[in-house]
Amino acid sequence: MRIVKTINQLRTILGEARRQGQTIGFVPTMGYFHQGHLSLMHQAKKDNDLCVVSIYVNPIQFGPKEDFKKYPRNLRRDSTMAKKENIDILFVPSDNIVYPKSYLTYIDVEKISQLLCGRFRPGHFKGVATVVAKLVNMVGPDVMYLGQKDAQQVAVLKTMLGDLNFSVKVKIVDTQREADGLAMSSRNQYLSPDQRQEAAVLYRALSQARKMIKAGEMSPAKIKAAIRSVIKNGSSGKIQYVQCVNADTLQDLKCLGGNILIALAVFFGKTRLIDNVSIRLHEPKQNKN
Amino acid sequence: MRIVKTINQLRTILGEARRQGQTIGFVPTMGYFHQGHLSLMHQAKKDNDLCVVSIYVNPIQFGPKEDFKKYPRNLRRDSTMAKKENIDILFVPSDNIVYPKSYLTYIDVEKISQLLCGRFRPGHFKGVATVVAKLVNMVGPDVMYLGQKDAQQVAVLKTMLGDLNFSVKVKIVDTQREADGLAMSSRNQYLSPDQRQEAAVLYRALSQARKMIKAGEMSPAKIKAAIRSVIKNGSSGKIQYVQCVNADTLQDLKCLGGNILIALAVFFGKTRLIDNVSIRLHEPKQNKN
Repeated sequence: MRIVKTINQLRTILGEARRQGQTIGFVPTMGYFHQGHLSLMHQAKKDNDLCVVSIYVNPIQFGPKEDFKKYPRNLRRDSTMAKKENIDILFVPSDNIVYPKSYLTYIDVEKISQLLCGRFRPGHFKGVATVVAKLVNMVGPDVMYLGQKDAQQVAVLKTMLGDLNFSVKVKIVDTQREADGLAMSSRNQYLSPDQRQEAAVLYRALSQARKMIKAGEMSPAKIKAAIRSVIKNGSSGKIQYVQCVNADTLQDLKCLGGNILIALAVFFGKTRLIDNVSIRLHEPKQNKN
Repeated sequence: MRIVKTINQLRTILGEARRQGQTIGFVPTMGYFHQGHLSLMHQAKKDNDLCVVSIYVNPIQFGPKEDFKKYPRNLRRDSTMAKKENIDILFVPSDNIVYPKSYLTYIDVEKISQLLCGRFRPGHFKGVATVVAKLVNMVGPDVMYLGQKDAQQVAVLKTMLGDLNFSVKVKIVDTQREADGLAMSSRNQYLSPDQRQEAAVLYRALSQARKMIKAGEMSPAKIKAAIRSVIKNGSSGKIQYVQCVNADTLQDLKCLGGNILIALAVFFGKTRLIDNVSIRLHEPKQNKN
């Protein structure tokens, strides 16, 4: 595995690989790897000749009161884990390479960036869309791998890449979960032991919602009420939102149908956790997009 | 010459060319070709194995009161002219291909999009940056050719492509002028015979400014006053702006130095014409960027 720090070095190596006809899989990350990242790397390595993983804690996707400074970073730990996954290139650009002093350009995906988490994190998805467009241009991958855990990120990035006619394909990998169902996240380490135990309630609530839908429940209001009730009764978590939306447009559903995303954000103390499940139903006429 | 209307067809042809090691030069245009476009095509053809020219009148770069509907279009005329320049591919996508119904993504180059013409055309450079990023992703050229006549467009696009780490190179081609100095523009055809004759005053004014600078004049205020005076005394043109700026950052200069751009926009009747000259001087200390 090579650790690459400059765009020129990256382009030299990957240009040569491409000339030899090798395919390139790319996993963009903010580092502090967990099983979720490893599953993305595993899939990328399986599908492609070469796997590039980037680690970059992107400052412009954090709000002024968010956890940019305390976001966990440990390159030694990450590079050991990436090596075990047989990653070919670990790309770790510095801030002055990604955003030089004269930097001015931002990509906005309108509407869907303002929904769900976007209502509470203004500018977050503009930061995500911008850095991923940049990374895709640096790496030039055939396929990019994203985790289903960040469902809105997936929707925003798929829209951005399609709208701007990037030729990279996107592959979504299932959310990896702890034994008790908690979605793996670099932010889980912020939780106290008590909070960590309580946080398993999120997946219990989402699983119950899934069961209700499979059993024929069609009312988003009832689904959301059930989720809220499970979380409130089973934990001290403070709900920021629970929503039933179309998984592609992220528009609220008035009646369940099509490609449904049930997404939530809940605070345990100061730690904000997100999770979701997606369910594909036959689409009722009134929800056609 | 092949006329190509879909992105898939374009990618098939150009993917094959690239596999054969051919280099691709790209000239993005809004059509209604004049000598300025032809000089871009000529350069692109000279430098590359393959030359792709796009014609697309980009709706999102026109303001609601601007000339989108009456902007001149004539594909038969344009394709005859492109054939004579030995262009390989004329790419003419339709609106529903470039901006499908679900379209949401926009690229903003902050600061420099708001200066010069940007002060009077809100949203214009966002539209330009967005469509050019899309076209570059569709074509995947080695080099893109732009005309110096649209100096702010050049600055915005160079910044956008650099900031977003596109690997395409940009080559700037000199402004082509009529015998009396008027910069070639598809919009010149809007001028009445009298206005057409008067419009030559713009280049006379810019040429005098250049002479003053070469003779040692260092005051932007005096340069701008001289330009305004030549235009007012020599025509009925209504000046929208005359500015002396740094050619890369488009920031106003308090003292002339470095890479200077003198740019103006003047109305003749309802027709808005722009023109500029650029002059490279030794950079005085107080203007270092």
